[in-house]
Amino acid sequence: MMTRIQYQECIDACIQTMNACNYSYVSSLKEYDLASLRESIRLDRECADICSFAIQAMTRQSPFIADILRLCADICEACANESSKHLHIHCKDCIEYCRNCAALCRSLSEAAVVYA
Amino acid sequence: MMTRIQYQECIDACIQTMNACNYSYVSSLKEYDLASLRESIRLDRECADICSFAIQAMTRQSPFIADILRLCADICEACANESSKHLHIHCKDCIEYCRNCAALCRSLSEAAVVYA
Amino acid sequence: MMTRIQYQECIDACIQTMNACNYSYVSSLKEYDLASLRESIRLDRECADICSFAIQAMTRQSPFIADILRLCADICEACANESSKHLHIHCKDCIEYCRNCAALCRSLSEAAVVYA
Amino acid sequence: MMTRIQYQECIDACIQTMNACNYSYVSSLKEYDLASLRESIRLDRECADICSFAIQAMTRQSPFIADILRLCADICEACANESSKHLHIHCKDCIEYCRNCAALCRSLSEAAVVYA
Repeated sequence: MMTRIQYQECIDACIQTMNACNYSYVSSLKEYDLASLRESIRLDRECADICSFAIQAMTRQSPFIADILRLCADICEACANESSKHLHIHCKDCIEYCRNCAALCRSLSEAAVVYA
Repeated sequence: MMTRIQYQECIDACIQTMNACNYSYVSSLKEYDLASLRESIRLDRECADICSFAIQAMTRQSPFIADILRLCADICEACANESSKHLHIHCKDCIEYCRNCAALCRSLSEAAVVYA
Repeated sequence: MMTRIQYQECIDACIQTMNACNYSYVSSLKEYDLASLRESIRLDRECADICSFAIQAMTRQSPFIADILRLCADICEACANESSKHLHIHCKDCIEYCRNCAALCRSLSEAAVVYA
Repeated sequence: MMTRIQYQECIDACIQTMNACNYSYVSSLKEYDLASLRESIRLDRECADICSFAIQAMTRQSPFIADILRLCADICEACANESSKHLHIHCKDCIEYCRNCAALCRSLSEAAVVYA
């Protein structure tokens, strides 16, 4: 059964991922090799937006949290995969945060399905 | 293959549903029999929030639109089901908008999977 | 005194602006002269996000609508000014939508202050 | 001059306030004296939504952060004032988080104006 403590760990991971993705988004837009980062910029925004949505949903105890977290996990993984094609430090940072967040979201999503 | 015209119809449906749900939310909070509307108030907010998210995602051509619209369809259906337990006009209005929106989101979600 | 009809006009303008800004955002990321559009890409996202926020706030009859619409007007104007530095059609389209939306938001913001 | 550390403190305060407001929102909807909490429920949602918006805006280094944080401060204060009319523990918790968040947002908003 889920506890609020488990949610807190996932909320923290989503915040760190939103932060890392938005930092990478802003940093990418300043890079010299901007053209190679087009897809990365798009996915950084997608990932930050779903993380933001998931954070609010967890704090308001959404009855749809299992599905929201599964979607968040999928988008975090896609963002990590795109980030892994690039060598910039802000892209490398994104990979770690996105993968950790995806694992926590997926694990909590599965627990939430059982709990519901 | 999806065209922008098909998106426009779904965007319009999501806007009307967000509008109907938020109107029902505000109206429910003014009702005399407020206590019977607790769950309806929560689902109105959930439905308005995912519709708002889906609208932005469609206008920015999100690569995750299939999954986002499927989630939106599920939440619209849940909101319609809850609204159908109540007799207020604003609840009745919600049912129609939510069901229409759910059908469009689901249909576009399936088309988007094929397209991707 | 404000009526719901006046809100509807402003909601429509915000939706069209969000749509135009997100279309310009996606289109800019595909352009050959991407490097000249860095600031435009950032402001397109800023403008789409505040328009999305304002739309939800209007539909839920937010008590803070005067301040939210003033902020939306300011950001729409900034986005229009940046877009006017570029010659792409999607940038030109943004200018018109943003300026129209800014005027409606500001006018409604001032009416809302009187009304509150 | 603002540093990222100052932003981090404000981001944390916004997250705690969003969390407290959404918890109070959910808890209020379960209360026996629900009817006395109508306005509190509305303001809890308003406050959670602007905090969520402000958090994203800070992490993406929005050029409009001064105005966004001033709006967030105003809404936090309104929510604290409404919460102070009620005796429930979740309302009392809201007051403290909202007041602290309002002070940090306002202070950072004024610093950002100078910095910009």
